[in-house]
Amino acid sequence: MKAPIDFYFDFSSPYGYLASEKIDELAARYGRTVNWHPVLLGAIFKVTNAVPLVQLPVKGQYYVRDFARSARFLGVPFRLPDPFPVATQNAARAFLWLQDRDPAQAREFAHACFRAYFVDNVNISEPEQVLAVAERLGIDRAALAAALAEPQLKERFRALNEAAIARGVCGSPYFIVDGEPFWGADRLPQVEKWLQTGGF
Amino acid sequence: MKAPIDFYFDFSSPYGYLASEKIDELAARYGRTVNWHPVLLGAIFKVTNAVPLVQLPVKGQYYVRDFARSARFLGVPFRLPDPFPVATQNAARAFLWLQDRDPAQAREFAHACFRAYFVDNVNISEPEQVLAVAERLGIDRAALAAALAEPQLKERFRALNEAAIARGVCGSPYFIVDGEPFWGADRLPQVEKWLQTGGF
Repeated sequence: MKAPIDFYFDFSSPYGYLASEKIDELAARYGRTVNWHPVLLGAIFKVTNAVPLVQLPVKGQYYVRDFARSARFLGVPFRLPDPFPVATQNAARAFLWLQDRDPAQAREFAHACFRAYFVDNVNISEPEQVLAVAERLGIDRAALAAALAEPQLKERFRALNEAAIARGVCGSPYFIVDGEPFWGADRLPQVEKWLQTGGF
Repeated sequence: MKAPIDFYFDFSSPYGYLASEKIDELAARYGRTVNWHPVLLGAIFKVTNAVPLVQLPVKGQYYVRDFARSARFLGVPFRLPDPFPVATQNAARAFLWLQDRDPAQAREFAHACFRAYFVDNVNISEPEQVLAVAERLGIDRAALAAALAEPQLKERFRALNEAAIARGVCGSPYFIVDGEPFWGADRLPQVEKWLQTGGF
């Protein structure tokens, strides 16, 4: 049994969204599964001394163009949401809570959150919107709302974020394949070659 | 006659080097030529508020790994030079001077400079090393040495750098294909699709 691929992402990351639409199918072609790990870029940016891409001078404008073009290149529907970026701890915590209960549904929820934000311009920083996304998938809205208020879930997510940072996760998407780190949706071809060859 | 591709690069940029080994052949497959434009990342970093990749916290270590892996992925010989990065105005000015005299030889010189630095660990920030690279290609060493001391050549290169920055060049490699900007060696597949389709 080959080890799962670790896939770290922030729900507010355009390149994380693009990768989320590709990584499971890519992994499956090589007999792999994928462990999805939502993280908060805000916490990562504190240790990498970074800011959101669109806030970068000169590069910000380039990235807006590149997000949309990269989406077309990969055949993934995309529109830049407004507001962008947003805080995604509610979506991330909801994912964690679901993951314990029904991993397949958690994956479905993650796709639905990404698409709500990057296709339908739904502000997934708002707890009500996260709950609405969950409800449409048949998830118990009241139980999830209660979970999102629990300090234990918040603490668990905080600790997972710190563990990701300690592992070197410096952006979104970030993949670890048999110990080898890959950062960026544009590294998917290298991930594929790594899976094909066992390392190159 | 289709417009040439503009290719901006710094001689001290690993991804610029990787792109330099690929772009002419890629362009030629679609009936295009490439105009090579050396720039100084130091000047670009002032307007983009950036620092050399290997100086970035956390990401620096990732990049060292990614440079070498990306080189293997593209089948290009590579070793990280020491010192790295270095100032490349002498190599860039020599390229400009050669470009006026013999564009084919200027291209050959650019490849030789990149390979001297990224394969043979030659410190191309030193004028003597730039002159040695040129001399091995049969270029008049004394004439080039005299040119490198000319204020006109320095001023011309400075103005070209500013023009590149004004055009939005925010890193190396940076390509402009029929008005569309692409940043990064990892955007070569998108450049190819753009050439294939006329835009997507």
